[in-house]
Amino acid sequence: MSEDVFQSSDNIRSGTPLKHIQYVAFDEPLELELGGRLENVRVAYETYGRLSAAADNAVLICHAISGDSHVASHDADDDPGWWEIVVGPGKPIDTDKYFVICSNTLGGCRGTTGPNCLNPDTGKPFGPDFPDITIADTVKVQCRLIAYLGIEVLLGVIGGSAGGMQVMDWAVRYPGRVRAAIPVATSPRLTSQTMAFDIIGRNAIIHSPDFHGGRYYDQKSGVRGLAVARMIGHITYLSREAMRAKFGDNRNRPRDIDSKFEKDTSVASYLAHQGDKFVERFDANSYITISRAVDRFDFGEGSALTERLRPAQCRWLLISFTSDWLFPPDQSEEIVRALLATEKSVSYCNVQSPCGHDAFLLPNELDMYGALASEFIARTYDSGSTITEVETDGQGRIDHPDTSIFHGRRVDYDSLEGLIISELSGSSPSVLDLGCGDGHMLLRLKRRGWQRLQGVEIDQEQVLSCVRQGIDCIHADLNEGLDQFADKQFDCVLLSRTLQAVYNVDRVVGDMLRVGKRCIVSFPNFAYRPLRRMLAEQGKAPESAGLLRYKWYDTPNIRFFSITDFEDYCREKKSTIHRLVALNTETRKEVFDEPNLNADLAIFVISKA
Amino acid sequence: MSEDVFQSSDNIRSGTPLKHIQYVAFDEPLELELGGRLENVRVAYETYGRLSAAADNAVLICHAISGDSHVASHDADDDPGWWEIVVGPGKPIDTDKYFVICSNTLGGCRGTTGPNCLNPDTGKPFGPDFPDITIADTVKVQCRLIAYLGIEVLLGVIGGSAGGMQVMDWAVRYPGRVRAAIPVATSPRLTSQTMAFDIIGRNAIIHSPDFHGGRYYDQKSGVRGLAVARMIGHITYLSREAMRAKFGDNRNRPRDIDSKFEKDTSVASYLAHQGDKFVERFDANSYITISRAVDRFDFGEGSALTERLRPAQCRWLLISFTSDWLFPPDQSEEIVRALLATEKSVSYCNVQSPCGHDAFLLPNELDMYGALASEFIARTYDSGSTITEVETDGQGRIDHPDTSIFHGRRVDYDSLEGLIISELSGSSPSVLDLGCGDGHMLLRLKRRGWQRLQGVEIDQEQVLSCVRQGIDCIHADLNEGLDQFADKQFDCVLLSRTLQAVYNVDRVVGDMLRVGKRCIVSFPNFAYRPLRRMLAEQGKAPESAGLLRYKWYDTPNIRFFSITDFEDYCREKKSTIHRLVALNTETRKEVFDEPNLNADLAIFVISKA
Repeated sequence: MSEDVFQSSDNIRSGTPLKHIQYVAFDEPLELELGGRLENVRVAYETYGRLSAAADNAVLICHAISGDSHVASHDADDDPGWWEIVVGPGKPIDTDKYFVICSNTLGGCRGTTGPNCLNPDTGKPFGPDFPDITIADTVKVQCRLIAYLGIEVLLGVIGGSAGGMQVMDWAVRYPGRVRAAIPVATSPRLTSQTMAFDIIGRNAIIHSPDFHGGRYYDQKSGVRGLAVARMIGHITYLSREAMRAKFGDNRNRPRDIDSKFEKDTSVASYLAHQGDKFVERFDANSYITISRAVDRFDFGEGSALTERLRPAQCRWLLISFTSDWLFPPDQSEEIVRALLATEKSVSYCNVQSPCGHDAFLLPNELDMYGALASEFIARTYDSGSTITEVETDGQGRIDHPDTSIFHGRRVDYDSLEGLIISELSGSSPSVLDLGCGDGHMLLRLKRRGWQRLQGVEIDQEQVLSCVRQGIDCIHADLNEGLDQFADKQFDCVLLSRTLQAVYNVDRVVGDMLRVGKRCIVSFPNFAYRPLRRMLAEQGKAPESAGLLRYKWYDTPNIRFFSITDFEDYCREKKSTIHRLVALNTETRKEVFDEPNLNADLAIFVISKA
Repeated sequence: MSEDVFQSSDNIRSGTPLKHIQYVAFDEPLELELGGRLENVRVAYETYGRLSAAADNAVLICHAISGDSHVASHDADDDPGWWEIVVGPGKPIDTDKYFVICSNTLGGCRGTTGPNCLNPDTGKPFGPDFPDITIADTVKVQCRLIAYLGIEVLLGVIGGSAGGMQVMDWAVRYPGRVRAAIPVATSPRLTSQTMAFDIIGRNAIIHSPDFHGGRYYDQKSGVRGLAVARMIGHITYLSREAMRAKFGDNRNRPRDIDSKFEKDTSVASYLAHQGDKFVERFDANSYITISRAVDRFDFGEGSALTERLRPAQCRWLLISFTSDWLFPPDQSEEIVRALLATEKSVSYCNVQSPCGHDAFLLPNELDMYGALASEFIARTYDSGSTITEVETDGQGRIDHPDTSIFHGRRVDYDSLEGLIISELSGSSPSVLDLGCGDGHMLLRLKRRGWQRLQGVEIDQEQVLSCVRQGIDCIHADLNEGLDQFADKQFDCVLLSRTLQAVYNVDRVVGDMLRVGKRCIVSFPNFAYRPLRRMLAEQGKAPESAGLLRYKWYDTPNIRFFSITDFEDYCREKKSTIHRLVALNTETRKEVFDEPNLNADLAIFVISKA
């Protein structure tokens, strides 16, 4: 291995090298996935923070198609990096705590071996002779770098967009070498729509009069078709809402720019500017090489994807953004589904955002996606040592002082926990908590040493709370079904104080019974004596403390039923009731006498016959 | 006026003229909206069916950016037209009944004066010297054609996409000359995203090495950049779902085509084929000319749009498609909103479709959008004569035999109708029916000669039923608010048997009180004696015949409240209760004694103080 080999063409069209870039070249040839090999591959990389003595605090960041190794500034005099808001001292990926590495991707134009580098066979830039590469090749080069830096196991690998594909490849290619994988705004394979935009971009480059079949390095200006490709890219990175906010009101006030592209509207002048700028800083052959690698990336769908991900041994956190139409959330959900199918540890959040695909680079949703990544890496770092004690009341119970929507929560939890334990045998039963909130019940079970615990929650803030506590949680709406889970996948499924707020009762209960060997359901009993009285005597919609403390017109509760109703329902659906625990949360006691009259909360243990 | 003047360049790059095209040229110069003029403008057009003696059955169809006059085949030997499924004998736009006209747009390349025609000043094709035009110029030319054909008033004008823009311009430019306007999948101004795609397409054309500044008519092959523009277009016409269905499973099985564009995946070969084909049949200068006219079209937003549409005197039917992201449904909703603000007669349907913008050209949703257009034109044609009697029981009441979800419907309707009449003074009060279903109540009022009647309905099939009966109906979800209506816009707002199924009660009732001078609300009384008993004595969720005939777990009813609850609510919200009519639909009698106990249905008349 030799450092600082500068083998680029002088005509490198990629801006000036940054002062903190380091280089390493590897003597051993790189055998490429699609055939062919590259000799003496060089990697440009930057590092931040210090590697711990145990070499257990390294986080690798994988950049997207047009990024580079400069993920953040190194000091106050340095240029800001492309993820400046995420990486740095005290930032979500905290360089005071972690050793952060980012390298320019293989095929890139910012220092790592790519089409603008000299081809040792010809002494000229590779240009169109640069071999076809894949995401796997990129990851293999990164792995050499990691080994070179003396790191056996990465604490985390994180990246957005094409960077997320690298994260996925890392996790399955080097299962023992990644502890936390965080693919952000990514995809197991591009949608056909996204691929189509890439194709058109390349068509524009290839048919540009100044492209000359990729042998353009001796001409002064860049390839104009690259600007068209970038313009297409820019639209796809933004959401319609974001573009509306940017241009809606000033359409006829274009920026006064010097460009040969259309520029008589604000939209046109913006695109012309972005296109021209990109031609200055990026290399057309790199764009073709990398975008084709991204198009080729294909982890499959459905069961193929499941098998592809099976070797992974790490914890997973998937993040998508609601308005991302280039790497749409349903593709992250597909990955989540595939991971769940082989019982991986996985959390997922579809972050609410109007910013489109670009959201992961912008400050708007940083509080959410930054915190998710930060907490997830931190809990992974902590794990193996002690679990960080967060937000508990000091007695091992989690404290919900004013934010609790529940009345008599403790007695319920204690009963629920007791029930779960008495119902489940085996050393570490698996539990799925539907509507898990901040993960309080799963945390109780985790503290008992149970391992296979999974939450599902609709509120993104609650998902973050779970991640913060090291609880695996999937961001999903129960009403849309639980087809991400397999039949009888969990020893126990919980649905605690949620059924009364569910529209699609049949679907939720049906799915729960399919997925769980045992199911535990708790809900407020609408036939509790004071509620009956209120309707019977006052002629008013029942209302009480606790779960039913809302007015009829603004309650989250939309299903009203009693213990008897639920028993009838189970009979009708041919499911077996194993136990009923009826509680009166006012007196904090279990009710044995006429539960449908005297209990305000019911806990059923049921299963499908 | 002179017919059949052939003034095109021999190098017209637009396929062969079709045998049924007719031509007319106008001696009077066309003064263009942006300055400049065109002499001796020629129009290529086709007609179908026969103009009635009263000349009252003419329907003008406006084509989108790459269409032409050949909307449908003229006989069995003829080529199919671009809207073959919609236009023809017995089809939604029935050429047995109507006289249908379609002309090639100004600036086009299929016979009407455009850049590929000879410039009389130079004797060469206009090329880049063709003047800047607008949608207004296009419409003015169409209007000359209509006058030439001896038509004073068009029964209907219909068009999708850019054709819809022409429809809008027609309606406000010639208010007395259009009876029914049907803009489909269109926009008051392009979104910035849509405009951006147009800009990039033009940039690709203009920088194509074979464009030569638009003076390319003497070269053999077309402008390759036009193919890139078309590829972009094709993605935007399809939805992500549609592309997934088309390419998802056969990505690596490209069609074997002869193209210089990328073609090694199915997506690429499809795009290459579409691009190449378009270069053969369309003219790049026309593409630039027309797409710029479309980009320039700007009817404004909000109150500007309202003012722009104010002159129109026709009936309106807006149609959008749920998965259309190029001309997204919210833009049609904006037009609807603006029309409502000046009390136009307007119906709207957002047709459920996975097909994207192209949906209006495809058979998938023809049953819905074709029927909407067909019924709307038919009812417009009928109006002035007798209203077609549809689906009534022969006694002027509409029959809902088995499909009715209601019990005791008649007594409710009779009471409601009576209440409306007694509450409202004036010769023709305005009524808004929220959740109007198939428009039965509004039809009752229409038969009384009331004019200003508007329905709102969430179910597209019901919207179609309204349109079929000549009732104006807006497709919308009450839960999302009624901000399309102005304060006190209606003398009366109805909310009949709907409130119990609404999640956002506060919003719906608040909006209703804002929009209506008087509001009439009916709902099932949850404190009706048998219901109280059921909970009190049996401890079960109340269930009865009629509106409450569902099981607790599958009922559409999600709000349970009583007459007393609603009275309390009105008090709390400081709204005035003018009247309560309490009904027992089982005995079919009004209840005067303890209505909260003895009535199963309540009708309140309320208003905001």
